Order: sequence, then C-alpha cells, then structure tokens
Amino acid sequence: MALRLGAIVDALGGELHGDRDLGIERLAPLQNARSDALSFLSHPKYRKELAASLAGCVIVSPAMREAAAARGAFIVTDDPYLYFARLTQLWKRAHARPETVRIHPSAVVDPGAFVDPTARIGALCVVERGARIGAGTILKSRVTVGEDCHLGARCLLHPGVVIGADGFGLAPHAGTWVKIEQLGAVRIGDDVEIGANTCIDRGALEDTVIEDGVKLDNLIQIGHNVRIGKHTAMAGCVGVAGSAVIGAHCTVGGGAIVLGHLTLADGVHISAATVVTRSILKPGQYTGVFPIDDNAAWEKNAATLKQLHSLRDRLKALEKKDIAG
Amino acid sequence: MALRLGAIVDALGGELHGDRDLGIERLAPLQNARSDALSFLSHPKYRKELAASLAGCVIVSPAMREAAAARGAFIVTDDPYLYFARLTQLWKRAHARPETVRIHPSAVVDPGAFVDPTARIGALCVVERGARIGAGTILKSRVTVGEDCHLGARCLLHPGVVIGADGFGLAPHAGTWVKIEQLGAVRIGDDVEIGANTCIDRGALEDTVIEDGVKLDNLIQIGHNVRIGKHTAMAGCVGVAGSAVIGAHCTVGGGAIVLGHLTLADGVHISAATVVTRSILKPGQYTGVFPIDDNAAWEKNAATLKQLHSLRDRLKALEKKDIAG
Amino acid sequence: MALRLGAIVDALGGELHGDRDLGIERLAPLQNARSDALSFLSHPKYRKELAASLAGCVIVSPAMREAAAARGAFIVTDDPYLYFARLTQLWKRAHARPETVRIHPSAVVDPGAFVDPTARIGALCVVERGARIGAGTILKSRVTVGEDCHLGARCLLHPGVVIGADGFGLAPHAGTWVKIEQLGAVRIGDDVEIGANTCIDRGALEDTVIEDGVKLDNLIQIGHNVRIGKHTAMAGCVGVAGSAVIGAHCTVGGGAIVLGHLTLADGVHISAATVVTRSILKPGQYTGVFPIDDNAAWEKNAATLKQLHSLRDRLKALEKKDIAG
Repeated sequence: MALRLGAIVDALGGELHGDRDLGIERLAPLQNARSDALSFLSHPKYRKELAASLAGCVIVSPAMREAAAARGAFIVTDDPYLYFARLTQLWKRAHARPETVRIHPSAVVDPGAFVDPTARIGALCVVERGARIGAGTILKSRVTVGEDCHLGARCLLHPGVVIGADGFGLAPHAGTWVKIEQLGAVRIGDDVEIGANTCIDRGALEDTVIEDGVKLDNLIQIGHNVRIGKHTAMAGCVGVAGSAVIGAHCTVGGGAIVLGHLTLADGVHISAATVVTRSILKPGQYTGVFPIDDNAAWEKNAATLKQLHSLRDRLKALEKKDIAG
Repeated sequence: MALRLGAIVDALGGELHGDRDLGIERLAPLQNARSDALSFLSHPKYRKELAASLAGCVIVSPAMREAAAARGAFIVTDDPYLYFARLTQLWKRAHARPETVRIHPSAVVDPGAFVDPTARIGALCVVERGARIGAGTILKSRVTVGEDCHLGARCLLHPGVVIGADGFGLAPHAGTWVKIEQLGAVRIGDDVEIGANTCIDRGALEDTVIEDGVKLDNLIQIGHNVRIGKHTAMAGCVGVAGSAVIGAHCTVGGGAIVLGHLTLADGVHISAATVVTRSILKPGQYTGVFPIDDNAAWEKNAATLKQLHSLRDRLKALEKKDIAG
Repeated sequence: MALRLGAIVDALGGELHGDRDLGIERLAPLQNARSDALSFLSHPKYRKELAASLAGCVIVSPAMREAAAARGAFIVTDDPYLYFARLTQLWKRAHARPETVRIHPSAVVDPGAFVDPTARIGALCVVERGARIGAGTILKSRVTVGEDCHLGARCLLHPGVVIGADGFGLAPHAGTWVKIEQLGAVRIGDDVEIGANTCIDRGALEDTVIEDGVKLDNLIQIGHNVRIGKHTAMAGCVGVAGSAVIGAHCTVGGGAIVLGHLTLADGVHISAATVVTRSILKPGQYTGVFPIDDNAAWEKNAATLKQLHSLRDRLKALEKKDIAG
C-alpha cells in the first residue's frame, strides 16, 4: 500500500520538490533507503549520507535545500524530525488494520469500572472497580489498572504495565514491619504514554499524580505520592522513590534513581544512571556517573578514591608548608 | 462511612482527648486535612504544620501533648507512625467491599497445586503444579507462581510478580552457552510482601529462600539460590545476584545492586543505588554513589577521576621531596 | 526416580570409576550432598569440600582424579561444569512430566500469527498477528509477542516477557512530545533465552535484532533498534538504550546501563552496574562503579570528589613551585 508524495504533503504540509505521483512503499533511514523509500535528514552532519542515499525522496530543512536538490525529490520543512514523527503517524493510520474489538473478551473489567466507549482494552488486561479509562485511551495486552485509578484521554499503556499496586509503606515495630495500607489511588492525565512493565504505585493517603503529556519508557518504577509535571519524559529503568515532586518539561535518563521526598524544578534534565540525592531547584543538566575505564585502571582509581579525603588533607599540609617556607 | 474517634481508640488504644462521637471521614496529611480528617504528627519537626492544620483530630506522641491540646482533639500514643499504620489497616477493613471470590475464574491453577481455602488468587494468575499457597495469602492479578514453589501464610503478591522463573545458569562451551536446568524451587515464608513485577528465580539445585516478614518493593530481581533473612526490606529496582546471602533486619535502598555469592550480616543497611561488591560482615550503613553535580562540574571531576591514581603518585613524590628538602 | 551412574555416562560420556548400578536420587552441591546424590567439583579450590563431601559420586577434572579416588565413586571429564550443565538437562528430561498442551486454551493467539507445531505457548500468553514462533520455542505463562515479531527455534521466554512494545521515540515540539510510531518489529534468532519481565522494544523503522544464542536474564530493557550479537549474555536489570550495537560473545553484568547509539566490539565484558557512555572497540573487561564504603567514609570522599578538579590544579601549582624552587 504505497502513499503518494502528493498525499503526504497534502496531509502534513511541507514544500515538495518532485513528482506528486511518486509512490512511497516504506520509510527508511538514509543509508538503507532504496528508491521506493522516503527518508529524512535529522541533522546537517549527515550531509554525506544524504548525498549517498538512494532514497526516492528525503525530508530536509531549508538549509539543506541545495544539497537535497542535487540528488532528487525532497520535501522542505522547518523541522524534519517533527515532520518525520507526523509522517510515521500518517503511515500507521494508512496501514493499520481496523481494530474492531473495544474490550477484548479475555480482559477482566470490573462492572464497577468506567471505560469510555472510545477506549480500547486489550487481551488479558485487568481493570478493577472504580477505575476510569478516558476517551481514546488504549491498554495493550496484560495491563492492570487498579481500584479507583483514573486515566485521562488518549493515553497508551504498553503490555505488563501495573497502575495502582500498593505503595511501599511500612512502619517499623519491634524488629518487624507493619503495613501502612495505601488508601490513595493514581491519577493520570491526558496523552500519557507508559512503557512495558512500568509500575506506578497508588498513594498512601492522597493520590500519585502523572500530569498531561508525560512519557514513561519501560521498566520504570514510580513510588507512591510521586507527582510528575506536564510533558516530562523518562527513559527506561528509572526509579522514582515515594513523594518525589518532579517538575514539568524535565527529562530523566535511563537507569537514573530519584530519591524520595525531593523536588525537581521545571526544566531539570538528569543524565542517565545518575542518582538524585537532593532537590534541584535550578533548570539545567545534572550528572553523577562513575566514568567507565578498562578494569585495571578502574581498580587503581577506585582504590585511591577511598583515600581521597586524606589525599586532600595531605595536599593541604603541603600547601601550608609551602606558604610557611 | 465515617469512623468515630471512640471506635478508633477502642480498637487501637491510645489516649483520646476530644469527643468520642466525632466522625472521621478520611485520613489525611496535616497540611491538607480538613475538619473531617484524622491526621498524625510523625516527627516533632512538623510542629508548625501541626499548629496550622485544620485536622479534626491528630495523633501525637506524649512530647507533643501540649502543642496538640492548643488546637483541638488529639490521640496520644508512644509511636504515632505505628499507630497510623494500624489505623490504615482498621480503615481499610472498615471500608473494604467484601471479597467473595476465592480463585478468580480467569486464573489458571494447576490441579496439582495446593491453594489454602483461605487464600485468594486474583484475575489472570498462574499457579503451576506442585505450588503451595498458604493460609490467607493473596495473589493480586497477573501473578505467576511456578512449579513446586511454596508461599507461606499471609503473603501479599502484587500484579506481575513472577516466582520461580529459571535462574540464570549457563556453562560456557566453545563460544556458546549451555543451559543449566534449574532444578530447585522458591520457598517463601509467612508475612512476605512482594511488589509489582518483581521476580524471584528458582534455585539451580537447592531452593531460593525468602524468610518470614521480608518486604520487597516493585521491579526487584532476586537471583537463584539467594537467601534473604527475616524482616529484611528492599526498595524498588534492587537487583540481587545469585547465591547472595542477606541477613535479617537489613534494608536495601532503591536501585542498589548486590553481586553474587556475597554475604551481608544481619542489620546491614545499603544506601540507594549502591553497588555491593564484597561481603559486609559488620552491621551499619554502607554507601557508594557518585555525587550528582551540574553537568559541567561533573565532566571536569570525572575526567580528573580517571587520573586519580597518578595524582596520588604525584602527591607522594612531592611529599618525599618535601621531607628530603 | 533414580538415574543409575551407568545410564548417566552412557548418555553424557565421561570416565566412570564406580558402580554402574548406583542409583542417583538427586543432584546436590558438594557440602549438602548425601550418599544418594551426585555432585561436581567446579574448581580445584574446593578440594577440601570434595574430601568432606558425602556425595555418592562426584564429577571431577582429570587433575582431581586422585583426590576423588580417595573418597569413592567419581566421573572424570575435561570440563566438570559443562558436564554438570548437560547432566541437569538429562535430569530434567528424565523427570519432566509430559507436556500435552501445545497452545494453552487461555492464551490469546491471533489467527494471523504463525506458531510452529512443535512450539509451546503457555497460559495467558498473547501472540499478535503477524508474529512467528519457531520450532521448539517455548513461551512460559504471561508472555506477549507483539505484531510481526519473529522468534527463531528453541527459544525460551519466561513469564512476563514483552517482545515488541513500542520503542521510546518522541520528537519535541513546542514543549510537548510528538510520538514517532514504531514501524519496525523484533527479530530474534535461535536458541535465545529471555528472562522474566524482560522487555525488547520494536524498532522505529527497521527491526530490533537479537542474534542466535543470546541469553538475557530478568528485568532487562532492550531499546528500539538495538542489535545484540551472537552468544552475548546479560545479567538482570541491564538497560540498553536505543540503537546500541553490541557485539558477539560479550557479557554485561547486572544493573549495567548501555547508552544509545554506541558500539561494543565482540568480546567486550562490562562489569555489573557500570554505565557505558562511549563506544568500546577493544575486547576486554570494563568497569565504572563507585566503591562501596561505610557511610561516613563515603560522605567524606564524595564531598572531596566534587572538588577533585580543583585539587588537581592545586597539586599542579605546588609541582610548578617545586620545580621553580
């Protein structure tokens, strides 16, 4: 099922230079594209790949107009990456087989749950009583949405997601742990995407809150009473401990850990695998990762690191003598 | 469904100062509580929040008696946090809708599994042959308990938990891996709670063992033949490699990694995101985390860290000269 | 159901010294083995445990022949650990109850999926349209294989695995994220084992590729368009970000993070919990882990680490003076 270039620019805009009737059979990266493929140039640094590409058409920024013209059909747009994103959506809509099932017969939906008529509940999902699934929201297979948890409109939850398991609340008592029942729920806004096997715990007394437009990758843990601000994105394997408050428009790199009861301002960017041990109130990029090295070098440096504070003292002592001398 | 203050102290003890007939509609944190809410003061440092709170009643320690009396009804107890934990349990019992289903019809329970008549198996769970589920134990939705794995009494397993997948056992052979079949199982004691999507692998020859009262948060990986001692608690995203032996009354912070074949004594506390690379035989708090910094500062320090050992040598050389001089 | 020693060496080879008719009731580690057990000596350093063991028979290397002869029956083989691995497989085959069900009735398999007649689909699995499940491949319970994803022969997928969820592809636009539909799939070779709750995302345009013989432990995240070379093994909780290309015969330790768009050569070994922030083109062992210490020592050293670069400058200044002086 080819899409013609004309149909693409009619739907998405952009300035087409080339044959409106050219049929596109696939989207492909520059280096693997053949004459039936549409490709895009995300960054001027790939200029060489552009020249060498066999793609039938490429999406480029105005600055690359001449380079693109030298090789064949192209579409000019201000933001080729954004254009490409929209093109994938157009592509998917054009090629998707129609979904006829609203609630898969194998799903277990409590009669006391509310599922919007335009929502879709996939195979082997569990939606517990009091849960609400908003308009256009899709639960892929094997998702659990716990009691009283609410999802907004146009959310997408991938397989294995668990919304509303109990938060990890325990009071110590005589060497044992006494469970604090988790009486809150989870409230998720609109346009939230949640990756496979990611978990968002219910709150202890009040709700855990995920605001509109948040994007969570796979295998992320969000503790009870966390709040994540609008349009914040987190990569895979992130852990956010209880009651952390994360601002809007933040990004958190894969494998990062955010400790509990912290605040991250809007626009804070945490590098992958960084451990956030204190609140961060100023936007910016923050990092804390031990640099990788060959094992022998690491062993030496790591051993010395355990004496670092005393090295500092020895340096100080030398400096003092130096001044005294 | 309000609970009266009188009913609460009748059930949980504590010294009530205030109207036994006052109805409590909800439990709430101090700062968000209104006159229909019961709240608690976990720490004297929140004295200001206590004074400002609109809560209908607060739970306080004896030391806070006067501060509490200045504002209205209160309950005095030695450990307000413990009291609060028990109150959440009372609250849940009072408000829970009765569970009528013992084994959800969508669950797949092998005829050769034993499920105690007082246990509850949720929707879309799998209980394989030879598994045993003890008295009062609850499997929420989408839990797998593998062949021959045993759970004690009053355990709580959250959605997505996998008990008894194969441990990761491989023998290298001519550049490939030969599988070591995992012939052991998993034995879990009483009063164990296991968070969503957490995995506990079966042992290679003998069993993986989780002792009574252990509490595991979400997305934790417990390798084969690990042993976790009584009342140890682990936060989310922890990984424990095979054959590690962890004592009783330990805590492991979120995202920490414990390497295999190590021993942790009773009462060892591992900070979040710390990597345990050696046995720890003395109780105490242990940490190993790269401190977070703004990215530019981190880059400089990380680069220097790769020369740390040679810096030490240069410092030594200077010290020698200093003495010689 | 005992296995006689004779039957074992007939099946697996090795040089038996002892009674062919001796029945083995279990496989056990040296220190816990009784006279009905077969055990093995993985390393000469366990020579003492060998002498003390009550095992009915032990598997040893030629070098340990005399030590073994001193205590009873033994099997000599060049690689006792490999022999043991094969023995566990023999043991499992001998003791397994026959599997009669090919596709469990509770599984949801799309009519447009292809499942080889010798493959087995466990309880509550989901196999979407266009998926292919190769000969002899086993999906344990609660596995999802997404649209158009292909699995080769003799793969083993543990409970909760998710193959083919959307990769994490987003284009920023005016403070929000625009989804890049993930149009690729996942291609998995032969003899691949995938641990519980591990996720492998589908590619953006082209496929995510896992080559033959790859072994992945539990709770691993493999991003879109990652390629993992033959016979590479990864321990639990590893995260591999999008478009990373990992060579053959690599190992990645538990909790390690590999950033996106990197290349790891064949034969690269990454230590547990290490963060791979750059391509590694030379085989070898690589590490980057903050050394664990008691908390007080860590606090001092971590604080000093934040001044490390300036310490270096101060050292340089002293060195200069020293030379000048």
